[in-house]
Amino acid sequence: MVKQERAARTRRSLIHAAAEVFAEMGFVSASLGAISARAGVSNGALHFHFANKSVLAEAVEAEAVEAVRRLTEEARDRQGDSLQAVVDAMHALVGALAEDIVVRAGFEIAGDMARGTRSPLRQEWQRWVEDSLRRAERAGALAGGVSWKDAARVVVAVTAGLELLGGEDASWLSRQSVTRIWELLLPLLSGRPGPGALVPSGSQTAVVAVPRAQVRTAPREP
Amino acid sequence: MVKQERAARTRRSLIHAAAEVFAEMGFVSASLGAISARAGVSNGALHFHFANKSVLAEAVEAEAVEAVRRLTEEARDRQGDSLQAVVDAMHALVGALAEDIVVRAGFEIAGDMARGTRSPLRQEWQRWVEDSLRRAERAGALAGGVSWKDAARVVVAVTAGLELLGGEDASWLSRQSVTRIWELLLPLLSGRPGPGALVPSGSQTAVVAVPRAQVRTAPREP
Repeated sequence: MVKQERAARTRRSLIHAAAEVFAEMGFVSASLGAISARAGVSNGALHFHFANKSVLAEAVEAEAVEAVRRLTEEARDRQGDSLQAVVDAMHALVGALAEDIVVRAGFEIAGDMARGTRSPLRQEWQRWVEDSLRRAERAGALAGGVSWKDAARVVVAVTAGLELLGGEDASWLSRQSVTRIWELLLPLLSGRPGPGALVPSGSQTAVVAVPRAQVRTAPREP
Repeated sequence: MVKQERAARTRRSLIHAAAEVFAEMGFVSASLGAISARAGVSNGALHFHFANKSVLAEAVEAEAVEAVRRLTEEARDRQGDSLQAVVDAMHALVGALAEDIVVRAGFEIAGDMARGTRSPLRQEWQRWVEDSLRRAERAGALAGGVSWKDAARVVVAVTAGLELLGGEDASWLSRQSVTRIWELLLPLLSGRPGPGALVPSGSQTAVVAVPRAQVRTAPREP
């Protein structure tokens, strides 16, 4: 039992170390030696858990997919309003890109491992955004003339853009950056100004931080 | 003179071959042997023009920057309306990402060569979009409450997103995809509906293809 726990802990630290090394130098340049050194384990221990670099990268990707699934499900569970759930989930996803090295690496290595293939992470996100905005449209929550498909296209493109630009300049991943974008997009997509309006800075932070009425305009902005 | 011309032609074909190989397998995996073979020249000829892979990658990047500068300048020269010029230039840029291997590779290798550094290409594009939208704001051409800075943030994020997603699935780079996005964004940014409205599918194609009045809604769409 203790042995199993230790094995699970080693596996987790190897995945974390691999994510760090992949994010720093890319999948192709990353060496298994650098990863096992970073994790503080022997090469033998690494090979016991992962047959090669691709298997390790797939484990990083799978864990990142799990994290994205978790944060989208949480946003949906907390929010009856599907459009607000998309706002909240995008804040959570971009926050994870900024702070969770496994999520960051999971997105980055897809193109490195096999150029031109579709990242399972981006597919997962796109599928969820489309499904949520389809629900919003059915509930009559999208502005007249805005289709869920077009709305999803813009949301998915913006998220991918923040991912790419955030790798060069982390300020693109700040809560303020995401809030600004939603301040512009939300009135367009929802057509609901004034009271009852949605919260560009994310409903969860808003509710937790201060009474909702006060936080319509980016409370965390410096 | 003939010799100089031949040297210039060899240089161009090496840059083109390098762009192809970089786009296919990434900067790190690309070998000089594969590039000279693709260009149909000897290794010696390659080394005569380019000391190493980094110098070759910088030449690809410089040529791509030149192409982006050209297409943004053309859009501005043709279009008195700064916001429409941004629409037109985004169509031209995304078209170049789809069809011009040097532009495509120029964008892709930035992160490969030195992770975390800012791509000169994305900087060039961002600078131009910001400048154009600042002009649009000064001319009173942006909708009330929309700042050039926020508008530019969304445009730059969407462009980067199309670049990233287009590497996985080329349909993101289609004229229809860009037109759909502008159909959604333009009314928001310009606040000018109806006659005198801007053209989401790009003003140049529109003018060339059919009388302008007929093409407000995506003429090239299948």
